[in-house]
Amino acid sequence: MTDIVSFGETMLRLSPPRGERLERTRELDVQAGGAESNVAVAAARLGANSVWLSKLPESPLGRRLVSELRSHGVRTGIAWDDADETRLGTYYLEHGGRPRGTNVIYDRADAAITTATPEELPKAAVRDAEVFYTSGITPALSETLAETTATLLQTARENGTTTAFDLNYRSKLWTPEEAKAGYEALFPHIDVLVAAERDAATCLGRTGDPETVARGLADDFDFETVVVTRSERGSLAVSDGQVYEQGVYAADTYDAIGTGDAFVGGFLAKRVDGGNVPESLAYGAATASLKRTIDGDLAVVTPEEVASVVGDDAGGISR
Amino acid sequence: MTDIVSFGETMLRLSPPRGERLERTRELDVQAGGAESNVAVAAARLGANSVWLSKLPESPLGRRLVSELRSHGVRTGIAWDDADETRLGTYYLEHGGRPRGTNVIYDRADAAITTATPEELPKAAVRDAEVFYTSGITPALSETLAETTATLLQTARENGTTTAFDLNYRSKLWTPEEAKAGYEALFPHIDVLVAAERDAATCLGRTGDPETVARGLADDFDFETVVVTRSERGSLAVSDGQVYEQGVYAADTYDAIGTGDAFVGGFLAKRVDGGNVPESLAYGAATASLKRTIDGDLAVVTPEEVASVVGDDAGGISR
Amino acid sequence: MTDIVSFGETMLRLSPPRGERLERTRELDVQAGGAESNVAVAAARLGANSVWLSKLPESPLGRRLVSELRSHGVRTGIAWDDADETRLGTYYLEHGGRPRGTNVIYDRADAAITTATPEELPKAAVRDAEVFYTSGITPALSETLAETTATLLQTARENGTTTAFDLNYRSKLWTPEEAKAGYEALFPHIDVLVAAERDAATCLGRTGDPETVARGLADDFDFETVVVTRSERGSLAVSDGQVYEQGVYAADTYDAIGTGDAFVGGFLAKRVDGGNVPESLAYGAATASLKRTIDGDLAVVTPEEVASVVGDDAGGISR
Amino acid sequence: MTDIVSFGETMLRLSPPRGERLERTRELDVQAGGAESNVAVAAARLGANSVWLSKLPESPLGRRLVSELRSHGVRTGIAWDDADETRLGTYYLEHGGRPRGTNVIYDRADAAITTATPEELPKAAVRDAEVFYTSGITPALSETLAETTATLLQTARENGTTTAFDLNYRSKLWTPEEAKAGYEALFPHIDVLVAAERDAATCLGRTGDPETVARGLADDFDFETVVVTRSERGSLAVSDGQVYEQGVYAADTYDAIGTGDAFVGGFLAKRVDGGNVPESLAYGAATASLKRTIDGDLAVVTPEEVASVVGDDAGGISR
Amino acid sequence: MTDIVSFGETMLRLSPPRGERLERTRELDVQAGGAESNVAVAAARLGANSVWLSKLPESPLGRRLVSELRSHGVRTGIAWDDADETRLGTYYLEHGGRPRGTNVIYDRADAAITTATPEELPKAAVRDAEVFYTSGITPALSETLAETTATLLQTARENGTTTAFDLNYRSKLWTPEEAKAGYEALFPHIDVLVAAERDAATCLGRTGDPETVARGLADDFDFETVVVTRSERGSLAVSDGQVYEQGVYAADTYDAIGTGDAFVGGFLAKRVDGGNVPESLAYGAATASLKRTIDGDLAVVTPEEVASVVGDDAGGISR
Amino acid sequence: MTDIVSFGETMLRLSPPRGERLERTRELDVQAGGAESNVAVAAARLGANSVWLSKLPESPLGRRLVSELRSHGVRTGIAWDDADETRLGTYYLEHGGRPRGTNVIYDRADAAITTATPEELPKAAVRDAEVFYTSGITPALSETLAETTATLLQTARENGTTTAFDLNYRSKLWTPEEAKAGYEALFPHIDVLVAAERDAATCLGRTGDPETVARGLADDFDFETVVVTRSERGSLAVSDGQVYEQGVYAADTYDAIGTGDAFVGGFLAKRVDGGNVPESLAYGAATASLKRTIDGDLAVVTPEEVASVVGDDAGGISR
Repeated sequence: MTDIVSFGETMLRLSPPRGERLERTRELDVQAGGAESNVAVAAARLGANSVWLSKLPESPLGRRLVSELRSHGVRTGIAWDDADETRLGTYYLEHGGRPRGTNVIYDRADAAITTATPEELPKAAVRDAEVFYTSGITPALSETLAETTATLLQTARENGTTTAFDLNYRSKLWTPEEAKAGYEALFPHIDVLVAAERDAATCLGRTGDPETVARGLADDFDFETVVVTRSERGSLAVSDGQVYEQGVYAADTYDAIGTGDAFVGGFLAKRVDGGNVPESLAYGAATASLKRTIDGDLAVVTPEEVASVVGDDAGGISR
Repeated sequence: MTDIVSFGETMLRLSPPRGERLERTRELDVQAGGAESNVAVAAARLGANSVWLSKLPESPLGRRLVSELRSHGVRTGIAWDDADETRLGTYYLEHGGRPRGTNVIYDRADAAITTATPEELPKAAVRDAEVFYTSGITPALSETLAETTATLLQTARENGTTTAFDLNYRSKLWTPEEAKAGYEALFPHIDVLVAAERDAATCLGRTGDPETVARGLADDFDFETVVVTRSERGSLAVSDGQVYEQGVYAADTYDAIGTGDAFVGGFLAKRVDGGNVPESLAYGAATASLKRTIDGDLAVVTPEEVASVVGDDAGGISR
Repeated sequence: MTDIVSFGETMLRLSPPRGERLERTRELDVQAGGAESNVAVAAARLGANSVWLSKLPESPLGRRLVSELRSHGVRTGIAWDDADETRLGTYYLEHGGRPRGTNVIYDRADAAITTATPEELPKAAVRDAEVFYTSGITPALSETLAETTATLLQTARENGTTTAFDLNYRSKLWTPEEAKAGYEALFPHIDVLVAAERDAATCLGRTGDPETVARGLADDFDFETVVVTRSERGSLAVSDGQVYEQGVYAADTYDAIGTGDAFVGGFLAKRVDGGNVPESLAYGAATASLKRTIDGDLAVVTPEEVASVVGDDAGGISR
Repeated sequence: MTDIVSFGETMLRLSPPRGERLERTRELDVQAGGAESNVAVAAARLGANSVWLSKLPESPLGRRLVSELRSHGVRTGIAWDDADETRLGTYYLEHGGRPRGTNVIYDRADAAITTATPEELPKAAVRDAEVFYTSGITPALSETLAETTATLLQTARENGTTTAFDLNYRSKLWTPEEAKAGYEALFPHIDVLVAAERDAATCLGRTGDPETVARGLADDFDFETVVVTRSERGSLAVSDGQVYEQGVYAADTYDAIGTGDAFVGGFLAKRVDGGNVPESLAYGAATASLKRTIDGDLAVVTPEEVASVVGDDAGGISR
Repeated sequence: MTDIVSFGETMLRLSPPRGERLERTRELDVQAGGAESNVAVAAARLGANSVWLSKLPESPLGRRLVSELRSHGVRTGIAWDDADETRLGTYYLEHGGRPRGTNVIYDRADAAITTATPEELPKAAVRDAEVFYTSGITPALSETLAETTATLLQTARENGTTTAFDLNYRSKLWTPEEAKAGYEALFPHIDVLVAAERDAATCLGRTGDPETVARGLADDFDFETVVVTRSERGSLAVSDGQVYEQGVYAADTYDAIGTGDAFVGGFLAKRVDGGNVPESLAYGAATASLKRTIDGDLAVVTPEEVASVVGDDAGGISR
Repeated sequence: MTDIVSFGETMLRLSPPRGERLERTRELDVQAGGAESNVAVAAARLGANSVWLSKLPESPLGRRLVSELRSHGVRTGIAWDDADETRLGTYYLEHGGRPRGTNVIYDRADAAITTATPEELPKAAVRDAEVFYTSGITPALSETLAETTATLLQTARENGTTTAFDLNYRSKLWTPEEAKAGYEALFPHIDVLVAAERDAATCLGRTGDPETVARGLADDFDFETVVVTRSERGSLAVSDGQVYEQGVYAADTYDAIGTGDAFVGGFLAKRVDGGNVPESLAYGAATASLKRTIDGDLAVVTPEEVASVVGDDAGGISR
């Protein structure tokens, strides 16, 4: 049986060497990156049986994504599109450093996935899974995808699959008002909500201390669990009325991209493996801290490493 | 005064290392590539005062193209587009080797240039130039561009600027029938036609020996000069009724992309410098042969090197 | 159902850049390489449902091999060994050029696989497959492996799985006499024998024209099919008494390592897909010729590319 | 009209990878570096119409410098020298880290520029500019250059061009006493003096708090503006009797080389754009802080980035 | 005359780029690494006449090690082994970062050195040297080596050569109990003991403040000198009853591997050059701090740099 | 005892990647290159006890050359010069390909060696060697060096050391007339002359078939041996009146630089090892052919490889 199915867009991530500007570079590093596959990879690496659903052009570029995800043990359910008729989304990532922020340029318009319908996708995978995960990026990509996302979430719920959703607000895709409407159309189908503190404020107008935010959302939309993530300040979950807090593990950050997805992947992997909420929060936080030390979107970690961080005995040179 | 103005699309060219497949690569080499800027660069490097017109997103990617072309001495006249509203075309190039051909994947749909209108572009540049050059790729990119191309060619002709045009048929952009109609709409505004033997056959139905093809086109459309290029078998020009033949110079091919544009750039640079047709053909052929030894779309050559190939005394180690 | 199961050793392949000697290099390229996984990858890429069985240390190095093979769509059945107790085989590859041959240094003694027993491996995979493949390298690695190989071949035969075997003589592992004894112990369990002309001569004393060699082996050991491969001179098969010849497809060789395995992978993939012997020989030869253009042991090809070579219309630049 | 003209030496900057010592490296990164072109590039990138004057060998190496500067939008006025008779200066840069300093090895003796006379250079550029800039490195390179520098400064002043000068003391070129004499010979022709606190102390014997240093210099040599730069402790300007202080913007330093030139480039760009002294100091400080995050001598920045640092809202990931 | 002779294993050190995991890497950096050759290189670079003794396969890999060490001025006395019969140890190094430690995977079983006997090695080198150095890694590699180590130490002592030994406990080679027995069998032949505080505790059960540890060992085993190293907390020596303390010099750590060996190499180089114990401790600490800034196991430093750190005037950019 | 001592200039060789032009490159490969050290390295690698004499700046760059040569087993006798007063010669190498030749840019003026006097160099090394070698580059570098070269050759002859000299004409250093005078001043001190056919014609006016050239030189200047090298057409020696011819071994050329030096190094190594003239010619030709397959100036070969080429059984993949 499948533990976790995710659905969303994955792009080619193209980044120049450290210290080099995108505007000048002669060389780009190539990796796969996308919120939902990042979650699937983290979960798969931590032992969850994971599947990623998407729509891709049938080209070397589309195959490249699949083969990278597959190498981490993720199975894929792809609607292959005619390579001459469609394209693959890409994003350019320039690493920053104070006072210059990390810069992301998306080139994702009209990607194959924007036309994905439920009929093209292996819905059986959603039905048979323990958890179905997607994020707020997916419905923002096109009207078709907004509908497909809703249908998949509904399908999941109707078949007893737990649904998890990360707001993942992207200001380049829609306005806060559009996002709010989009989110709220999906909320009735969602069990577990992950919300960055900033997204909750910007899009949903939920401010205040994180417990208030989490409780408010849980109450208003009847979520089983709400996890509020606060970047360097840790996370907080309200689940079945209980509150759980989790700090961050200290990390030397090499690449911060994908940290949030690593958190979700770790959290869900532990949940489907039987962990309770606080255990899963710790597992997610540890996965996220390890991710920071690794180049790329993906949490290339092992269960032993995550356990070691949770158990607080990592560090040093082992030889 | 400007010698040569060209107008067209330039893309980011992304290519994996030799022997590595696009489907597997972790690294992409980045360069600028586009028929019309390739011609402008070759001509500028050979001494012509060159300008390239285009429309680009105002982003690090758009600026990257401009800075690369500018580094070769090409001046640019750019209509800058809002980076959030548009994109830059890219193309992926995988070097081949028998029995596997070199593979090109275009990702150019909806590039900024597809909406370029004559009003946005510095038409004065076209009016003041000795030669205006574009290729059959440009009108194939969008209906707007087909109109813009026609307007620019007309503007040039009306102001005494010689117009040059390379068929450059791209089967991924239009059918032979569409191309024929597109070409023939522009032919009345063209002085110098460059036609690959294959394109003349495929799109215009002109077959037979190259002289017949060239004469037929010159007669039917009243071109001042028609140059038929035949890849490894050299080229032939009919100009004011005279026929000139030119062989290829032997070359160790490192990268064949851009060879045709190098030929045109060398040919035009010599023409605007006062060379007659056979001298210009030789100059074009030499530029093309040098291009083959160099990685990338661009003919990174010097006038001395081209002269040396024409004078046949190159080769060996000079020290 | 599984089409092809292979069993054998895969190593880390470490190679310096072109033109650089192993003795001086500061940098090694890392890839997976091993006859049986090379075959599984080629077959999987060409559409066969493929599984690779082996034994590996449970370490980043062992996982690296699995993830690379998995990225090509091969499923794996691994007996994981304690990383502190065992090791992973490696091989160093220095590309040559006349008058200096390509040089291979094996460092494979005591690799985890040398202790693999049938009990540790998922024998069900062998039973359920259409074809079971291994090569003469496997029994040469240890006495334990010689026995395991025999057992797996027997298991396959008893369950109706076709068995295929490539002599793959390695002089650094055993003498021709030892190899002869080792091979002949396994021949009773083999349906399809692949034999390089040179190996047949060196180890089995079979010389003469390839048809004689193939017929002799088929008659003496009752093989269903014998394929004699002759490097640049093509291949010849005797199958159920019929003779089939196949030439090589011209190729620009970038990396010759793995060419033979690509041939076998292409041949078997076509066979399990219903191709007859001559079709499968052509498919194998085309896969092998494409492999030559690609860096690494693996045939990173697509069914379309192989079909295109067989159909003889490859080459040139498609754009 | 030209905003800023600078005159000076630019070298090939050759540096090994991070963590690698020059003494051992197999690979050198190549970039252009020189105080006056660094200033011209920073200013050009920030919108100033900039020209760089110099003398170079007519070789691929000389052309390389021009093309790199040109790619940033700097125009060049070069006296080309016979490549067989002269050379290009180079400098080797080894990045350090406590307790090992960054190490610079100059190989600049007898560079083409050391023989540059005013007659060879396009003096009209100096006459038509708003600002003429050079630094104390230039007169230190040769006696000829000391005279040429004086002549150019005089020419500028006589034509109403504001002159700006950075002490830029280099102990490997001359002694403090020689530098003092050299500087003071030029001071009568200078409007804006930039002086590192350390250089003012070492060469001019001016110590004490920066305001005292700046006022003293302004009073004694009748400068319109004196800017004292104090590295991590910010800068201070005395201009027409007024005092302005500017702190540094926090930065993660990737490469500190060129920080001072970035400051000057930003300062001058803002001045010619109509900024007052405090605005220009802030702009210079922001440009310098951004430079620190970028590999190479050059401040590869945009006006928007500099404005954002001044406005204090940079940092984070924008997506 | 030879100043320092060391004996031990050197491996190929293979490491992926920063931020990349061993499990995913396509590229490995190659360098030589081994405690005793690290010491020999540091000492040779600092002016000591140094020789390294070992046993290696006569292959490109074995020659690679020799040529790298030789390039630093170390002479080598090698027992060459048949390359087909033996192997070279390798180790994989993955750089870490909180919360993930640096990870080392040894692949050193059955390396050529494990069979080295005193007869194969140039014992004259040991006899003629001022200092003979080896570490606790060597006797842990095989029983043969434990005996060879003892013989060489004895030979040294009998010929008036000072013997120095670093515990260098490696938990992957033996248990603390085995190590204790191994160490104590050698202690009678040792003059100078270097012991990491942690090794002294783990293997010898010596805990408490470092002076107590050092005095206890010196008294119990009659060492002339005992140096206790405490990582970031400095070192302490007891020599002929006197106590000396040494802090660490602040360093930006790029690569911590080999720091301890650099300390020993600096310490011994100063000792054989006539330095007293506190001078030698300072020299060792400075060498170690410089090592931290350099990629690889080796302290690529100069005597001037070490002297500069000791004299506390390093840092900044010199130009 | 020393077998071969050579004296001459070695430079840093800086070359861009294949297919990339020097004018555009961001990256340079760094190696040591110089005729006399190339010969010393080839000879040392083939078993000769070799020493290289030169004068170098005492800097990381000077040390880099020494460490690279030392890594091949060459001992060095260096007159170290003050790094602030002198420089190291460099040369830029751009690989070509028809119709563009390989391009070399020397930047060697005022290198440290140009001031080398016999007193600074370890003349004992010359006296004690079996062969002293230098080339026509050395006396061309400065008048001081012309004198030093003469003195060293004389010293060698007076002490019974055989002297060998390669004309190695460099048109960028002197005219044919100057070279002729320079050569003829040294000829009285030379036993073995190596002359490229082209150099003999250009500088000495010796044309005609190679035997005539060799005999003419041997007769006129009383050389013991004259070797005329003819590039792809092999070589011919006249020694003590006998004539010997040697063809070239077929090679796939990766880098032709240093081929002539490899020939001399192989020839001399065999001579000092007791080989007769034809054996030594074959050895030289084989060394040269292997050199062609290797990147860089140096013949990174082994005696076994050279013997294998001479014995004609190289090629293929050994595994």
